Amino acid sequence: MERIILDCDPGHDDAIAILLAAGSDAIELLGITTVAGNNTIDNVTTNAQAVCQVAGIEVPIARGASEPLVTPQIVSHDIHGGTGMDGPVLPEITTQLDPRHAVDFIIDTVMAEPAQSVTLVPVGPFTNIALAMRKEPRIVERVKRVVAMGGSYTRGNVTPSAEYNIYVDPEAAEAVFRGAWPVTMVGLDLTHQALATQELQDRVRLLDSDVARFVLDIWGFIGKTYEDVFEFPAPPVHDACCVAYLIDPSVMRVEPAHIAVELHGQWTKGMTVVNFRERAGMHHSTGVAAQLQDHRGQVATELNWPRFADLVVDAIAQLSTRTAPERD
Amino acid sequence: MERIILDCDPGHDDAIAILLAAGSDAIELLGITTVAGNNTIDNVTTNAQAVCQVAGIEVPIARGASEPLVTPQIVSHDIHGGTGMDGPVLPEITTQLDPRHAVDFIIDTVMAEPAQSVTLVPVGPFTNIALAMRKEPRIVERVKRVVAMGGSYTRGNVTPSAEYNIYVDPEAAEAVFRGAWPVTMVGLDLTHQALATQELQDRVRLLDSDVARFVLDIWGFIGKTYEDVFEFPAPPVHDACCVAYLIDPSVMRVEPAHIAVELHGQWTKGMTVVNFRERAGMHHSTGVAAQLQDHRGQVATELNWPRFADLVVDAIAQLSTRTAPERD
Amino acid sequence: MERIILDCDPGHDDAIAILLAAGSDAIELLGITTVAGNNTIDNVTTNAQAVCQVAGIEVPIARGASEPLVTPQIVSHDIHGGTGMDGPVLPEITTQLDPRHAVDFIIDTVMAEPAQSVTLVPVGPFTNIALAMRKEPRIVERVKRVVAMGGSYTRGNVTPSAEYNIYVDPEAAEAVFRGAWPVTMVGLDLTHQALATQELQDRVRLLDSDVARFVLDIWGFIGKTYEDVFEFPAPPVHDACCVAYLIDPSVMRVEPAHIAVELHGQWTKGMTVVNFRERAGMHHSTGVAAQLQDHRGQVATELNWPRFADLVVDAIAQLSTRTAPERD
Amino acid sequence: MERIILDCDPGHDDAIAILLAAGSDAIELLGITTVAGNNTIDNVTTNAQAVCQVAGIEVPIARGASEPLVTPQIVSHDIHGGTGMDGPVLPEITTQLDPRHAVDFIIDTVMAEPAQSVTLVPVGPFTNIALAMRKEPRIVERVKRVVAMGGSYTRGNVTPSAEYNIYVDPEAAEAVFRGAWPVTMVGLDLTHQALATQELQDRVRLLDSDVARFVLDIWGFIGKTYEDVFEFPAPPVHDACCVAYLIDPSVMRVEPAHIAVELHGQWTKGMTVVNFRERAGMHHSTGVAAQLQDHRGQVATELNWPRFADLVVDAIAQLSTRTAPERD
Repeated sequence: MERIILDCDPGHDDAIAILLAAGSDAIELLGITTVAGNNTIDNVTTNAQAVCQVAGIEVPIARGASEPLVTPQIVSHDIHGGTGMDGPVLPEITTQLDPRHAVDFIIDTVMAEPAQSVTLVPVGPFTNIALAMRKEPRIVERVKRVVAMGGSYTRGNVTPSAEYNIYVDPEAAEAVFRGAWPVTMVGLDLTHQALATQELQDRVRLLDSDVARFVLDIWGFIGKTYEDVFEFPAPPVHDACCVAYLIDPSVMRVEPAHIAVELHGQWTKGMTVVNFRERAGMHHSTGVAAQLQDHRGQVATELNWPRFADLVVDAIAQLSTRTAPERD
Repeated sequence: MERIILDCDPGHDDAIAILLAAGSDAIELLGITTVAGNNTIDNVTTNAQAVCQVAGIEVPIARGASEPLVTPQIVSHDIHGGTGMDGPVLPEITTQLDPRHAVDFIIDTVMAEPAQSVTLVPVGPFTNIALAMRKEPRIVERVKRVVAMGGSYTRGNVTPSAEYNIYVDPEAAEAVFRGAWPVTMVGLDLTHQALATQELQDRVRLLDSDVARFVLDIWGFIGKTYEDVFEFPAPPVHDACCVAYLIDPSVMRVEPAHIAVELHGQWTKGMTVVNFRERAGMHHSTGVAAQLQDHRGQVATELNWPRFADLVVDAIAQLSTRTAPERD
Repeated sequence: MERIILDCDPGHDDAIAILLAAGSDAIELLGITTVAGNNTIDNVTTNAQAVCQVAGIEVPIARGASEPLVTPQIVSHDIHGGTGMDGPVLPEITTQLDPRHAVDFIIDTVMAEPAQSVTLVPVGPFTNIALAMRKEPRIVERVKRVVAMGGSYTRGNVTPSAEYNIYVDPEAAEAVFRGAWPVTMVGLDLTHQALATQELQDRVRLLDSDVARFVLDIWGFIGKTYEDVFEFPAPPVHDACCVAYLIDPSVMRVEPAHIAVELHGQWTKGMTVVNFRERAGMHHSTGVAAQLQDHRGQVATELNWPRFADLVVDAIAQLSTRTAPERD
Repeated sequence: MERIILDCDPGHDDAIAILLAAGSDAIELLGITTVAGNNTIDNVTTNAQAVCQVAGIEVPIARGASEPLVTPQIVSHDIHGGTGMDGPVLPEITTQLDPRHAVDFIIDTVMAEPAQSVTLVPVGPFTNIALAMRKEPRIVERVKRVVAMGGSYTRGNVTPSAEYNIYVDPEAAEAVFRGAWPVTMVGLDLTHQALATQELQDRVRLLDSDVARFVLDIWGFIGKTYEDVFEFPAPPVHDACCVAYLIDPSVMRVEPAHIAVELHGQWTKGMTVVNFRERAGMHHSTGVAAQLQDHRGQVATELNWPRFADLVVDAIAQLSTRTAPERD
């Protein structure tokens, strides 16, 4: 059983991550925290509440940071639509937020729960996590580990070298990756393998439930965007990959690596620079190379797509059952 | 017929590039210029002379820059051995160098030959080319094009993001890639496909000539290094790829791209940041992305290995004939 | 009447800043927050409590950040001694800290007090202020203004271009200077004029009180350090300058300026780059220059030393009276 | 006797530097080399020829680099007018340039003259010097020393921190300052003391010669610019300060220092970072500080203006005599 706080900015794939976490018996979702990213903090927080209402998920939701740690905010773009989660019709919000700031929710939860029992799962910009680390440094050794969606070791999606979550708050990402806790980076290299293909969509459609239809609406909108903008055959379900990995580590291959965030480049700002252990041949004559010897991080490289698809379908099925109207 | 100046730092694969250029009827080798890189300017210049003597190649050889444009020199490393071309027994040097500095040889040749008739082929650090551009800016529009070995759009070999030729003189590379001439970047992504496999080595062995044996000695040494250091099954023939492409463009696929050199990163200095035209989905909200719209460069992506191998064998065969002792 | 939160890392001159704020009728000291800088968060917090006990100051003290926002912490150095405030004998601590984190104390106070009524006075690294801005962005328009000790427009004291408070947490400083609130930078240019000369020390000695003797012990230790390390004739009372300015603006001249923090330089990291309004002749052909046209900041340039000395003596005199043992 | 090559981009104050060098018995002017900077290479070269014709100076003039080493060229600005030396009426050019490129003129001269006998005096961007160093590294130990106009240890004139000559080609400046030769930096701190005041202009007027009138026309134009743009009471004669120092070292005070050029800053690119030896108190806990311990450079700090004025008047007087029409 993995006990997690999901820190997100829904966001279409964030919504699937929430559903996957809530619909799996292997996960205890301690709470959801929100962070500005795919859209404003107001919109992503409302979206998180909407997803939970639709799927009957009752967990604390705490609103977090509305802008990056240091870097000026990058204005919203055209991937997720004007609400940050265009596509499905969202319900009127009837639930209350947790009164605490996301940063305090994270700190309180980690400090109240047993040491090494809570996993942080940031799948938006890492602003909340960095703020929590700095406000209460003791969480770093108390957290079990961090499994984060962000970065890439091949190509970016905002610039040729930078992925969105890292690019918009690179200083926060640097703080998180440099922290003395175990970090697993689930980057574009992995998540671009996690496509919501027609086959997967068809299996969800067979579930014939409100949650299933909600998911299909999500994929309908984002699938169109990814086709138009990125020429992808189907939309990647980035954020859900972190949750899938916590349900079943066999769903992806991870490799030990040194992970650094480039903060100072002209062309490479926000790039995750990944050095894998096995690249033993890297020339070691330079200072940079020497720093790369520490391979504390883990980087996801290869997805078991069939297993991933099963986990997604199972979770939606379970939520469908829970939310099914009683029949007599 | 391509008329070229080969600017190199032999270097094992540089040696093959020289042989390929000299042994092909499709290339007129106007001269060889040397640059410090794989080893000191003294050693790489001697090595260039040695290769030409062994293969009976009579072209001007001009000695060039002994250190990078701006960046302090990175001390020699363990890839090419103490001489920069360990392995074969080298002959006593009996030829004379061209009296001119490589920079002047390049300028004089380009300005003396018809416009658009000379192609520059830098396969070491780009120092000589940058110096020539700055001393005589008119060469930029007079040169036909530049086909360069260096960089990468996936992973580096000195650091996780930087390839050696660019890393050791990034400012020179920036000058060359930003120049208003057509540049083709043949990087590690391509050259790591150009392995001197056992099959290729066997075909060369059958030529049973001094030149063939010289080539096998080259590959013997560098193959051992690449096996030990990089765990490669066979040594890449990086530099020869540029020449192969000029003999027969069908030997590799190239794609239009914007190419920039990162000069300012903490972890990414010397990285070539490549933006391919077809990645139309790159978000365009940022200034960086806007600059990436210009796809004047060309980047090599895919090698036709069988064709490459044929070109190498043919050239060595032709040189073997030329240098064969007369029999009566 | 200025109502302030003093954010500090005592620190010898921080101690004088506390005394000046508490001993002046023109200042209402709403609270003291502490931040790691001159020493560990534990030591500087204890030091703040000690100063308040010695001088009979009863205000909330809230403990804050123990490390910088992004940059790795710079280990403690030789200026302030092992405790961070070597020199005076410190009392046993008998007071309690405010239960809140400094970040929450700042946010709560600013949001609870009337808009535009609270001035923040950071005189250590700006970490707490940056964290508070990011956790509760509304404080930025609610605060009256920020009067900060840090930076320089001529020379630094950690490197040739960087002053300590900015150097150790440049990202926090960047956030504070870029914030949409009025910021006055009181840098080394000003504070190196604010020396605790023999004349000033003699005037304090005449007060013949416990507080006066505490101040002389402070100046005795730090004066020796500044003589040995910096060859200063007397110790600067950096942090007290901000408070003095709030008591009486005529104590220093300030000029409008654009203030930026260099985050990316090899030699200039942590430098405050100040562009004064009157330097109209700055060439405007470059993008950098264009950004410099906004002169929202204020930079202190010239100290009225006699007035400064009077303010310090008056405050210590007032505190001496308050803390004098009753006589019968 | 100082034997010098003056590398310049006339430029009003460059013109005075030429006249001072040619009109002093303490200087042997081996040649003038030109570099793009204050204006295009065509214009500054013509201007150098014009100055020499007006003053009857017969030395080789070699045309040099037309753009910076790496950085894109910064387009010409409003200080020196459209020709780069607006003000005086320039003669028709009747002299021939040296056939060599400035880079080769510098190399040939330094290598042909006795070791340690030639001083380089760059007073424009350092492009030619950097190119010469890289084309022929042996000049570095063969040159006597470099006395350069450029940089600042207080404030810049293009940006708050960068002076023009360094800003437009920072990589060349870095190469020159890092070279293993003695370098004296004569920056804005010094040259802003070297004003062509009304008093100095009156003394020149009394010389009543064509050269004197030429100088007054120079100062008339540039004086107006400096008054309008920089609010200076009189125009600084920047470049002539280097020559004055070589005629009589007592004309300025110089101090040992470490000089670095910032190549990577967002706000500080092209800044000269100067660490004086006596700032012994700089904290040494950081890597940056450690690198600053080497004080090979010399930085000019204080001008003896009366002595400077005398040198300028004497040189113009001597040239006036030489060029005076014979009377019978």
